[in-house]
This record gives sequence, C-alpha cells and structure tokens, in this order.
Amino acid sequence: MRAIFAILTVGSVFLSLSAAETRPLSLMPMPASVQMKTGHLVIDPSFTVGIQGRSPDTLLQHSIEIFLDNLRRRTGMPPLDMKIVDAAQAKLLIHCERPSKAVQELGEDESYSLDVSATGAKLDAVTTLGVMRGLQTFLQMVQTTSDGFAVPAITIQDKPRFPWRGLMIDVSRHFIPLDVLKRNLDGMAAVKLNVFHWHLSDNQGFRVESKKFPKLQELGSDGLYYTQDEVRDLIAYAHDRGIRVVPEFDMPGHSTAWFVGYPELASAPGPYQIERKWGIFDPAMDPTQEQTYKFLDAFIGEMARLFPDQFFHIGGDEVNGKQWDANPNIQAFMRAHGMKTNQDLQAYFNTRVQKLVSKHGKTMVGWDEILRPDLPKDIVVQSWRGQDSLAAAAKLGYRGLLSFGYYVDLNWPASRHYAVEPINGAAANLSPEEQQSILGGEACMWSEYVSPENIDSRLWPRTAAIAERLWSAQDLTDVQSMYQRLQHVSRWLDWLGLTHNSSYAPMLQRIAGSNDISPLRMLTDVLEPVKDYTREEIAAVEATSLAPLNRVVDAVRPESETARHFTDLVNSLLAGQTDNNTKQEIAMWLSRWRDNQTKLQPLEKQSFLLQEVVPLSQDLSAVALTGIQALDYFDRSERPPDSWTTEQFTLLEQAQKPKGQLLLMVVPAVRELVEASSGQKAPLPQK
Amino acid sequence: MRAIFAILTVGSVFLSLSAAETRPLSLMPMPASVQMKTGHLVIDPSFTVGIQGRSPDTLLQHSIEIFLDNLRRRTGMPPLDMKIVDAAQAKLLIHCERPSKAVQELGEDESYSLDVSATGAKLDAVTTLGVMRGLQTFLQMVQTTSDGFAVPAITIQDKPRFPWRGLMIDVSRHFIPLDVLKRNLDGMAAVKLNVFHWHLSDNQGFRVESKKFPKLQELGSDGLYYTQDEVRDLIAYAHDRGIRVVPEFDMPGHSTAWFVGYPELASAPGPYQIERKWGIFDPAMDPTQEQTYKFLDAFIGEMARLFPDQFFHIGGDEVNGKQWDANPNIQAFMRAHGMKTNQDLQAYFNTRVQKLVSKHGKTMVGWDEILRPDLPKDIVVQSWRGQDSLAAAAKLGYRGLLSFGYYVDLNWPASRHYAVEPINGAAANLSPEEQQSILGGEACMWSEYVSPENIDSRLWPRTAAIAERLWSAQDLTDVQSMYQRLQHVSRWLDWLGLTHNSSYAPMLQRIAGSNDISPLRMLTDVLEPVKDYTREEIAAVEATSLAPLNRVVDAVRPESETARHFTDLVNSLLAGQTDNNTKQEIAMWLSRWRDNQTKLQPLEKQSFLLQEVVPLSQDLSAVALTGIQALDYFDRSERPPDSWTTEQFTLLEQAQKPKGQLLLMVVPAVRELVEASSGQKAPLPQK
Repeated sequence: MRAIFAILTVGSVFLSLSAAETRPLSLMPMPASVQMKTGHLVIDPSFTVGIQGRSPDTLLQHSIEIFLDNLRRRTGMPPLDMKIVDAAQAKLLIHCERPSKAVQELGEDESYSLDVSATGAKLDAVTTLGVMRGLQTFLQMVQTTSDGFAVPAITIQDKPRFPWRGLMIDVSRHFIPLDVLKRNLDGMAAVKLNVFHWHLSDNQGFRVESKKFPKLQELGSDGLYYTQDEVRDLIAYAHDRGIRVVPEFDMPGHSTAWFVGYPELASAPGPYQIERKWGIFDPAMDPTQEQTYKFLDAFIGEMARLFPDQFFHIGGDEVNGKQWDANPNIQAFMRAHGMKTNQDLQAYFNTRVQKLVSKHGKTMVGWDEILRPDLPKDIVVQSWRGQDSLAAAAKLGYRGLLSFGYYVDLNWPASRHYAVEPINGAAANLSPEEQQSILGGEACMWSEYVSPENIDSRLWPRTAAIAERLWSAQDLTDVQSMYQRLQHVSRWLDWLGLTHNSSYAPMLQRIAGSNDISPLRMLTDVLEPVKDYTREEIAAVEATSLAPLNRVVDAVRPESETARHFTDLVNSLLAGQTDNNTKQEIAMWLSRWRDNQTKLQPLEKQSFLLQEVVPLSQDLSAVALTGIQALDYFDRSERPPDSWTTEQFTLLEQAQKPKGQLLLMVVPAVRELVEASSGQKAPLPQK
Repeated sequence: MRAIFAILTVGSVFLSLSAAETRPLSLMPMPASVQMKTGHLVIDPSFTVGIQGRSPDTLLQHSIEIFLDNLRRRTGMPPLDMKIVDAAQAKLLIHCERPSKAVQELGEDESYSLDVSATGAKLDAVTTLGVMRGLQTFLQMVQTTSDGFAVPAITIQDKPRFPWRGLMIDVSRHFIPLDVLKRNLDGMAAVKLNVFHWHLSDNQGFRVESKKFPKLQELGSDGLYYTQDEVRDLIAYAHDRGIRVVPEFDMPGHSTAWFVGYPELASAPGPYQIERKWGIFDPAMDPTQEQTYKFLDAFIGEMARLFPDQFFHIGGDEVNGKQWDANPNIQAFMRAHGMKTNQDLQAYFNTRVQKLVSKHGKTMVGWDEILRPDLPKDIVVQSWRGQDSLAAAAKLGYRGLLSFGYYVDLNWPASRHYAVEPINGAAANLSPEEQQSILGGEACMWSEYVSPENIDSRLWPRTAAIAERLWSAQDLTDVQSMYQRLQHVSRWLDWLGLTHNSSYAPMLQRIAGSNDISPLRMLTDVLEPVKDYTREEIAAVEATSLAPLNRVVDAVRPESETARHFTDLVNSLLAGQTDNNTKQEIAMWLSRWRDNQTKLQPLEKQSFLLQEVVPLSQDLSAVALTGIQALDYFDRSERPPDSWTTEQFTLLEQAQKPKGQLLLMVVPAVRELVEASSGQKAPLPQK
C-alpha cells in the first residue's frame, strides 16, 4: 500500500503493457489501492461476463448489460458479441455477495476489488453497487494496443472516502429535458457519483407534475415540466446506475413559481408571474397560515410517494423577509409567538415542515440557513457557506454536505474545485466521530446561463475532479496528474454521449455564420467566461430567462486547455527546465495569435454575434506581439527599454479586463514573459 | 422564370443581404423557381408564426412546433421565445387550404410558395405537406448576418418533380435502433424525401414483433427487433414530418430468419439458423404448400393493420431456386401445373401473395424480379436493374421506382448518384403518359457494413444529392453547385442530430488509442472505402454480421472532400486557370502528406487497428513526393528524365491498388501532374 501511494503522489501510474508500450493509466477517480502487474487481458468479440454464485437479480443484470453496452461503444463490437455466460466460461467473473437495497440507501457498501490478468478478470464486491463501481473502473482501463483492445493486468482494491457524492442540477432557471439529464447520469456513473440532487422548483419554474395541485405545473412552468411517469423513468435510469435521486422543492423562499397557481400560499396578495430575472426575490410562503401546512402536507405526501429516496430537500435558502416585514398579520403572529427575527419565523416554518417530511417517512435536507439547534438530529445540512459551517453543524450533531467550492456554474478551473477539501478549516479539527457526520459533498450546477446545448460543457469534465475529491484519498492532490487524467475522462464521456466537446464547433459555426471557424476557434480557445457572479455584475442589459444563450461567452469552455498549456510552457521556460522545443512552441503560439486578427476580420463583418469579441481579437494580437518581443529580449538576455516595459504593462492591464463577459486567458503568461525579460514586476491593476 | 433558371444552371444563387454582404443561397433540393429580392427578414426572439383562416389540425400544429424547435436550434433561442400567435401579429403567416390526408397518400399536393420580405413572410400551400416542405426551405435560408439571424427577401414557387422520393434502410443485416432511424427521418424531412422504405426482414434477421407468429422475432432476431408500439411510434414520427412508411417483408427468398421459428414455411427441412454471412442463400418459402399462404394471409393481415400506408413491399428479389430444384414435391407440383422454370413458380407465388396483399387492402410493391404481365396493373416495381427495366414495366402499364444508381452503400461519390436521371435510357423514349408511371426513386442503404455508429456517415450528405435529383428540375445538373450546397446541408444535418460528421473523430480516436489523431486524420481524410462490392470480393476473411465495424474502412468518409478539393486545384492548375495561391496550396498539401508518415509512426506502433493502413501511409508520403517533384518540373517547364517518369507511373499504379479495403484518393491527381510535367500518358493499369 505504501509503495503504491508513493507512486500516486508523484503523478500518473504508468503501465507496462508489453515490451514496446508504456502508457499512463487514466483512472478517475483514482482507486484506493492499485498494484500493477505485467501483461494484459485482450478484449475481443469472444469477451464474456459471468456471475459466480447466486443467480443475478434484475439490477445486477442491468448493470452488466449497461457495462457491455459501454464496452461495445469503446471497442466498436456489434451487439451480438460479448455476452453474459455461465461462470465457468467467463472472461470477467463477477462475484457479488448480496444485492443492494431495493431503494438505494446512504452508506451502502460500494467497495470492490478487481483482479485482471492476461487470462481473465475477477471482480468482487459486497453489493451490486460495488459491482457497478468496479465495472466503471474496468471500462476506464480499456485501451487500444498493438495486440487488440486490452485491459492491463492489475490488482485494485477500492472504496469511496465519502458516502454522499452528488451533483445538483437546477432545472428551474432553465428547463433541462429528460434526455439531457440521462446522459449526465451516465457521466455521473462513469466517475462514481452516487446522488443526483434535482433542484425542481424555484422562482423561475416549477418543474414536476403534481396531480394534487396541477396549477403548480400548469401555471408555473411555461409547459416545461416532467410528468410523473418521466420522473419515475429518470429514477429507474438512475437506479440502474447506482445513483440516488434526491428531489428539492425550495421553500419558503425561491418559490414565486408556486404562487402563480396558488397565490394564497404567499405572504403578499397576488397575482404572481413566473420570474424571468435572476437574483433573490421577495415572495415567500406565509408561515403563519395553517392552510400553508395543509397544502404542504398533501404536496410533500404526494412527492414522497413519487420519489423513493429517504432524503427530501426543502431548500430553505435566501429568504429576504421583505414580504414578512410588510405583512401586518405575519408581524402580529411573530409578536404573539415571541419571535424576534425573520430567522425565528423561518425556524418555526422549518420545524413545521420537518414534521411533515418526517410524517411522510423522509429525512429532511436543507441549505445552511435551515440549521437551528431545535431541529431533530437526523436532518442533513448542505453547506454553500463552507467547512466552518459544516463543522459547526457537526458539533451540534448534525450531518452535513459540502457544496461550497463546488459550484461549477462559477466557471472556476478544475484545479480550484479539486483543492477544496471537505475536512478542512474548522472541520479538520473535529473529532473522528464528528468528522463522520460530514457525509461528502455535491457539485452544484445553477442554471442561469445554461441551456440543453451548453450545460454539458459547464459540467464536464470539471465535475470529474470533484468526484475524485469525494471518492479518492485525501492526499491525492497532484494537479498535473489530475489534469492528465481529466483529459482522458473527458474523451470517455464523449463516448457516453455527453456533448461537452461536440457542442463547441456547431455553436461557433452558428456564431460565425460559416463552416470555416478556424480563426474564430483560435481566439475562443484562449477565452473563458468571466468568473463567479461577474456576468450579472457587469451586464449591459439585465439578463433574464428569455435571453438567448448563443453568445461567444455561452460557447467557450469554462477552462481554456490551450491557455493552461501555454502557461505551463512559459513557466517551464522561465524556470529554466526547458529545451528548444518549448521555446519554439511558445513562439509558434504567439505568432499564430499575432496573425489571427487579420484572419478573423472577414468573419467579424458578417456576424452580429462576433461584434463583442472584436476587442478581444485585437487584444490577442497585441498581447501576442508583446510576448514575441519579450521572448526576443529574454532570448538575447537583453534588458528592454523601460518605456517599452511600461507600455506593455499598460497594454496587458487593459487586455486583462473582461470584454463581452469574456477573459483573455493568455495575458498572465505573457505578463510573466515581460516581467522576466525586463526584470520588473507589473504594477498592481487599477480598479 | 427563364432568367432564374439561367442563374441556376451556372451555379449557386447569390444573395445580396445588405450593401456589405453577399452570400450563396444554399438550398437543397433547389426549388422550382427562385426570385431574389433585396433586404432580409430578421429572426429574433420576437419571431412568431400564425395560421391564416382555419384553425390548425394536429398535424399542422405539430409541423409548426417541429419547425420552431429547429429554428431555435439554428439560432440558440430559448423555448420561451418564438411562439405561435394570432395571424394578425405573425411574422411568418401560414395559409394552408386543406389538411393533408389522415394517412398520407402517394401524390398528395406538396407544392408551396414562400414570400419573404423585410417585414414578414408568407407561406402558402394547398395541403399541410406543402407547409412542411416550405418550412424546411425557410429553415435552410436562415443565416447569421451582421444584423442578426435573418432570412433573405425572396419569392419561391416550388413543387416536387416526382411524387415518390424515398430512402430504404435495411435493418436486417445490421439492426438499426429506433433513435437512429428517427434522426434519419429528420434528415429525410430536411431534404424533402417523403417515403421511408423499411426493409424489415431478410436472411440475417426478422425485425418486427408479430403477435400472431411470435417465434418470428423471438427466434429470428437475436432479440434485436421493434415492438409494435415502437413501430407505431416511428410511423407517427414520420407522419409528423410528411413521410410515408412502407414496410418490406422480403419473400419468398431472403427469408432464412423466418424459418428459424417456422421451418415449415421453407422448401427444405430445417432446422434453420439466423444467417451470419452476406450474399444470396438457398432457403426460400415453399410456394406449393397451402399452409404457406395460410400463414402469409394471417401475417400480412397483421402487418397491414400495423402499417397504415397503402403500399406493402414483398421484396421478391434474388431467389436462387436451389431449394426448389432439390425438392421432389415442388418439382412434381411444377410439372403438374405446367411450370417450366423457377421464374414461373415465383410468378405463381407472387400472384397468390398479391391477392393476399390486395385482400388486406394494400397495393403490392416488389423488386424487378416480380414483374410478370399477369399481375394486376396497380402493383409497383422497384428497379435495381435500371431505367430500361422501368421503361419495360411502364410499357406494360406498371408503375415504377428507380433505385439503380442510388445504392448509397456502394460508396460512390455524390456526383455519380446525382447524374442518375430516372427518365433516361429507354425511359426517355416513353410517351409523356407512360413517363407518368415512373413515380420517382429511392436511395437504398443495404447494411452489410453499417452500424448505428457509422450509418449516418454512409447516408449523409450524399443522400441529399439524390433527394435533389428527385425533387428538382431535370436540367439542374451543375456538380460544383451541388457540392457547394451539399456542404451547407451537411452542417444543417449536424444541427438535426445526425452523426455523419461527429462520429468521425471518436472512431479515429478509438482506432488510434489516442486523443491526438491529427496525423491519422491527415491520412484518413484522403482515403475512401473501396467501391461497389469490392469489399466482399477482396476480403481476407469472409465478413459476417459478427465482425466488428471498427476498422479504418468503417470510419473514413465514403467521399473524401480533401481529395476532391485537391483534384480541383490540380485541374485548374493544369488548365492554366490559376493564380499563385493555387500552386501554393497544392504544394502545401503535398508537403504535409510527404511528412505525415513520420508523424503517424508512433501511433501505428500502439494500435492493432492501424496496421492495415501502414502501407497507405507509406504510399501517401511516396505519392506526395512524386507530386512535389512533378510540380517542380512543371513549374520550371523542364521535362523530367524518362526513367523518373516510368518509375513514378509504376509507383502510382501500385499506390492506386486497394489496401485494407481502402483507396488512396489523391493518386489520380498526382498522376495528372506527372503526365503534365512529362508529357507522357500513364500506361493502363495491369490487372
């Protein structure tokens, strides 16, 4: 074990497939223990899977069928090949002690061991969930080799670090159709995530059919909602992939869409409209009316039957309290009950709702704000505030989930998410028992700026890095190795039908109004959307759900691979760890970028969507020219005139500013070149 | 009208969108009459559609919803934008005289006229089918412009030349799942094809659920078949797109898969197995047994109810007669009934089957071989033999369809299909009345070498050229214009979800075992699969349905755009119609190809699937070097030594031979360069 971790911490695991071949093993999440052996198991049309011992239950059968289907995609084998056979003849023999629970539970055993040799493979697991996780590991190891498709000989022992590894998708701000969710469930399964948290209602839309309260979807969804049959279909799809589905109905705030059909639930008289803007809004349920709880009792009962999972998320975040402040009846109620603040009133609401959730057999989950020590200890707190907040909850005996640092809609680089450790800050000082109450975490995809067309590109591959943080060892922190493996996972996700890569060129073609997008792509490959909530902050026109998401900012990747690669090249040049090729490659990129503006100009003329990137294109050319000059000074070890240096710093500062909601990601590396060549530090940017 | 056709015959129609912009209008099939105007209609989120006159029937409503959905894809608008509204406020006003038939019929009116101005558009049609066709034309005209998304101001009058414009897909030799068929129906609708001919049974599989004879699918399909619900779903999907669905159950030959479950239908005792090979096989139904007709009566009755279309295809092709020859009872029957040949026996069978088809209310269709003058005149003959065969049928009073020349599985270039004119040869000499009996034609996709992964790439974009042949004017024959427009249609088909372009890179990545496929792609971009039936003829190992379709030959495009472009460059160089850029581009390609072999070598070592293209990679480098030298001689107007010329011709002849079932498509252009530089003609290739 120790020897293996020593390998892991320095980077990738390399495989010796045969005398001629050595290739990195691109597993993600990295298993707990990996021991390399020599040789490999060839995967050809005669490949078979068998089940040892008990006859397979439906779920195990489905798992293997899904596995074979994926293996066929990976190898191009027809559906007639690669069958399930008797254990005695199987190339991959599966042993599974017992079925997993009919309704998947938190904390079920997901461990497995996988032993692959040149003659066959064996997968052992306690439950069907462990089999699923092991099969995903097997799939990630399939390689094209000189001998055929093959999996390297290897021994793996694996189990997850955290039992709750989730992805939340907000389908309210933009509706995300069922097929898009399904392909994302495939992506989740590939990286061993096990909870799909479905944010089903918010100000901008109520997305589930209620048979008891049909005006919820009829008036609150623009016709964009899931029928109950579709919900069941999605849950079954997730179940087949070892994924729990936790529904969230946000209350008492974030609830405008409910009030379009049922204004009587609100704390101010209606009528209400579906909200089209983003932000925090005033409408909130009236916690002082018994009819509110009567409604919620029936509603939660209906949804508790529809969603089999043990957990039921009530949101509970971001109530601004304005409707409560303005309503004399509510104020009177608060006085009569000795409530001093709106937080007290929300705590009262939560306590009432928790009893309803509990009455219908479920365990309540909510965001940070729900936490008050008078709630029962079985509830779970999902923290967007951070590890200290989780630690505080744990100290009070509550279980928690981390989402702070895992908001993938903020367009952070994968490395930044990867560095977010759940057991950190105050959480690191908890006792081992208290740490047990930190169940894991969830990546969150809030959907202000995603559509079915670009949501995959906002989720993948970066979410895989979060999945690794939640599954793999705490000391697995090598960023270079993570990025190397992330690239492989990204291609594997392509095979599963995710469109994070494939949607890019068509969107650029639409923007350009041309099939020949090479100069546009040269530019967009080094652009990223602005980060955090800057898009709202600097918007020229307030964004709404009616705005088309067809701009360059909607098409570019959240993280520029090209810029990262270029920055790496510059860093190694400046660190002196470099050969002539590195310098040549830097020069090649700079000269391409310098010349790109001229090539992009004809496209710019013919597209209204390109107007906002014209300044970025000009900046790229100018910055590249700066880089070429700096490289030249650096190369000749000649100090540039101070006037030149000052001019370049001014230019770079200007080029670093967002334009068209986009950032030019090669500016910092070029600044480093200027600093290195001039021996001067760039001045701090002026606000 | 004359002026317009004058424009069409010289090439593309150019639009003046604004003072600054002129772009080709990429309509395919080209409408019957197009009149350009100035200005354009902007398509923004406020775009609306209204229906004039009658309240819309379901089909019209669906058509418009599908149109809006496609328009949203094309523009990136959210589902909340671009609505159906009252006629008075509509940007696009639709007037439709009457609904099309509940079950779409052959020959229904598909004409439409479209008038677009800067302020709005009007679409007039007699039936809903015409509306659908006009909406597709509208979609093809949406462009990204400096003013926004826009459709040029234009007046179009359009109607199809032939009423039957089909695509046959064989789902027996390889099963094609429902979702793949659906996306291909979208492709068909985009190019105004109106018949999906579903080849549902053959030796290699019986693909429809029969409730009366369940062993057909249970034993004859490897579990790969469509349920009756799925069939109804597909028919509804096609109906919404103005496409008829004609089922084919091939009989009495091509029927091994039936006999696995029902050997008593065959002319020799069983047991039978699903056929795994390709070719013509002995098993045939026994036409002498009354039980055969009893079975077929019940079966055809069941399928006649499942498939609402008026036409019912019984195949009838390629009976080799061996089982009939060997069966003494059949021989005795033939003698007793005065039948001299197996053709007589098949004619008897066809006559009996025709009566059953007719009894169940349907009109029979069959391949060439069914034609015998004693069949009723309402049957339709589908000809794989050619226009003369069609003419002969027409002379006898039968209606016919051309498929000769439209077999897209043979990997011909689009131009070759495009040149196949239904009213040609003997058909051109028919009287106008007789010509009316030529209903149109069908592209045919036989599926020996296609899987769900690569079938789209074998169908598209080439099938669009056939669609134009069947819809547009007979004198529209400009190949350059066709290719120009085909490229645009190909991208539009991408938007519809077809994978003909997107499947290429992932297949190459699998083959290479690497994400970096640029040197492989440099090679495969100039390769094509061997043509016609060469793949069977030169196969080292006999191909079967069990063979993986994951080789380079399965990934490369049927027609190399790069090679076609390079050939065009060389042709214009040699014709003297060229500038320095052309010569430079030729030189650039040649030098890239020359250097590619070195770059591909590292990949070749690591993949078993690349071994068979190593000789092609070597050839490409060698041929490119030849080209460079020839260009140099040509440039300096220096005649090369004869020994050099002879050597190059030998090299080129060798390089022209198929390897790995692939052809190197740049050889002919390089040969032209050698011929031009040397003043010698290459010797005829030795067989």
